[in-house]
Amino acid sequence: MARARRIALLTDFGLRDHYVAVMKGVILSVHPAARIVDLSHEIASQDVTAAYLFLQNVYRYFPLGTLFVAVVDPGVGTERAIIGVEAGGRLFLAPDNGLLGFLERFEKIRRIVRVDNAKYFLRPVSNTFHGRDILAPVAGHLSRGVDLGRMGTEVRSLVRLSVPLPKADGGTIRGEVISVDRFGNLVTNISADQIPKNRGVQVYVGAKCVGKLCATYGSRAPGRTLAYLGSGGSLEIAVNRGSAARKLGIGVGATVAVRP
Amino acid sequence: MARARRIALLTDFGLRDHYVAVMKGVILSVHPAARIVDLSHEIASQDVTAAYLFLQNVYRYFPLGTLFVAVVDPGVGTERAIIGVEAGGRLFLAPDNGLLGFLERFEKIRRIVRVDNAKYFLRPVSNTFHGRDILAPVAGHLSRGVDLGRMGTEVRSLVRLSVPLPKADGGTIRGEVISVDRFGNLVTNISADQIPKNRGVQVYVGAKCVGKLCATYGSRAPGRTLAYLGSGGSLEIAVNRGSAARKLGIGVGATVAVRP
Amino acid sequence: MARARRIALLTDFGLRDHYVAVMKGVILSVHPAARIVDLSHEIASQDVTAAYLFLQNVYRYFPLGTLFVAVVDPGVGTERAIIGVEAGGRLFLAPDNGLLGFLERFEKIRRIVRVDNAKYFLRPVSNTFHGRDILAPVAGHLSRGVDLGRMGTEVRSLVRLSVPLPKADGGTIRGEVISVDRFGNLVTNISADQIPKNRGVQVYVGAKCVGKLCATYGSRAPGRTLAYLGSGGSLEIAVNRGSAARKLGIGVGATVAVRP
Repeated sequence: MARARRIALLTDFGLRDHYVAVMKGVILSVHPAARIVDLSHEIASQDVTAAYLFLQNVYRYFPLGTLFVAVVDPGVGTERAIIGVEAGGRLFLAPDNGLLGFLERFEKIRRIVRVDNAKYFLRPVSNTFHGRDILAPVAGHLSRGVDLGRMGTEVRSLVRLSVPLPKADGGTIRGEVISVDRFGNLVTNISADQIPKNRGVQVYVGAKCVGKLCATYGSRAPGRTLAYLGSGGSLEIAVNRGSAARKLGIGVGATVAVRP
Repeated sequence: MARARRIALLTDFGLRDHYVAVMKGVILSVHPAARIVDLSHEIASQDVTAAYLFLQNVYRYFPLGTLFVAVVDPGVGTERAIIGVEAGGRLFLAPDNGLLGFLERFEKIRRIVRVDNAKYFLRPVSNTFHGRDILAPVAGHLSRGVDLGRMGTEVRSLVRLSVPLPKADGGTIRGEVISVDRFGNLVTNISADQIPKNRGVQVYVGAKCVGKLCATYGSRAPGRTLAYLGSGGSLEIAVNRGSAARKLGIGVGATVAVRP
Repeated sequence: MARARRIALLTDFGLRDHYVAVMKGVILSVHPAARIVDLSHEIASQDVTAAYLFLQNVYRYFPLGTLFVAVVDPGVGTERAIIGVEAGGRLFLAPDNGLLGFLERFEKIRRIVRVDNAKYFLRPVSNTFHGRDILAPVAGHLSRGVDLGRMGTEVRSLVRLSVPLPKADGGTIRGEVISVDRFGNLVTNISADQIPKNRGVQVYVGAKCVGKLCATYGSRAPGRTLAYLGSGGSLEIAVNRGSAARKLGIGVGATVAVRP
């Protein structure tokens, strides 16, 4: 490659401990000119689904050629593989635990490589910190232009994660809250294109009706609950200048319905 | 410009959600060589005053030419404008909600541009995430050298924020706590130059007298409360090796007085 | 130097306040091309030991030539010095409060310089924010290639920190928990090479036996407690897919023993 790949880093390590710093050190030791972008290190501990949804929301906004490295790895030290995936003009490196499963939904996958070429690992490889011993050095080598194919064995499939999908039931769409953001907005798994455009709908959270779709937070008075199509392309529930999670006492898994 | 502008990024998005990562992706897609510095993403949700005070404390330490992008935006999707401001040899991009009001106090403003040239936006522009759809791509273009004037219409004024100011009352100065830092230090709105230098003063927090001005934390024994002139140029109250906020049970808005 | 030194930044400032942002601004004003890597700003307030352990775990993974700047500084404004240390092929800049004491244990120290050449400081130097007024500008100058020797006076020793060491008592090794990571894993001060390899041992936390050494988290069923040699080279106690700190109700200072 003419130009080094930028590395976008996502982990559940937090920043109180040394883990992220060590990964950055290893990457820079392998490739001193590497450009690292922190996506987040605040994924909830071992929450593979949260990392899946985060990366799904983010990857398409980055330049072609970006290398995403995601470490949320409750199975570290077991037989789970580490995989590199080429899809959507970008590279992805992560434990094969479902974290990258969104790629099968949204992109044509060019290749999947099981990363098992120890030539590119730190030695010895620990049983508890593959972020340092495998993912970071492999990321360093990929970023300086080594081909993904040299990192291991090409395989045919990756592990899937069962992220809940909404169901249509007559005219009603039933979904659920799949994440709650910092503002207390409830993000659902009902996507904008599943909601009929041609006539009004009513949105329900549990038994509570929160009315029709609004254009934005300010469509309702401060403190009022509203439903709207969020910036990620799915139905969300918010409270204008407040927290829907707190006001409604609701979190991940709560039922949401859209009725004619 | 010969040299690309560095982008200094301040938001209230936190790092658990994908918003900051998405903004970085958009900036880098517009300008792959952009250099982004994270200032903070931990501004309290929708706290425009906190962002105002943060940026006021920070901007002058950055090199001339820096582009500051601040997204604390409770009015997203309403009629509030997004503005670009040139002042103090630097550029500032933010919602026009008072966040940049400190510039009028401390700098000569060269120009204010209402950012409304959709040529530089992502399309479609959502109603809930202008950080991604407007501020990030505009920042990318500004950082690669596009002139601020091309981003929209020059205007004459920006929205002001009423940050409380102290009052002189005979020889007494009455102010208040305007922020509490991580160490529990109480930062007031009484600036060093308002306090008479030529003779001793006594500092009061509510009814409690915390004595005269000290040079530094260590001027008092560990666990003791003290008043001093903080690094930002204003009166602060601290507990040596402890938290004044916790010890005194005090937060933003508490009364502080300086008496002869 | 032919190539600018990268700056790796560690503080206890958190990211809610403006302190870290100000330090970055000062560094970039002195050396606009400086490359800054955030290690962490989430060291517990004024916890010098936590910073010592963090940096001890991290520094050897960074490239030779890296400049580490660590600001955990409860004694700011008192007589404590600021020192620059050259050791292990890298540079370290920090208050002389024990934070860098690990270097004496693991490296041959090339030189220690008491940083007192005000030519490289911001002026005036405040009593409460030497991170901004001394460490950041000195780091900027060091990163652009100014020799450490020009920053002050060479001295012979640095302040030591008494980090607790384990004791051997017959066949038993008694140590303690010295940190708890984000996952609730208990990190002890018993290093791997202190534990006999040739025969089985039993690990105790307080009075509770957690059994023999396991290879990794997955060696025990989810929810079960286990002992293992952690990625930092010391004995750790974890709960597979859970938090040992929470399950055992244990924190820093708890007794850990390894018995034949």
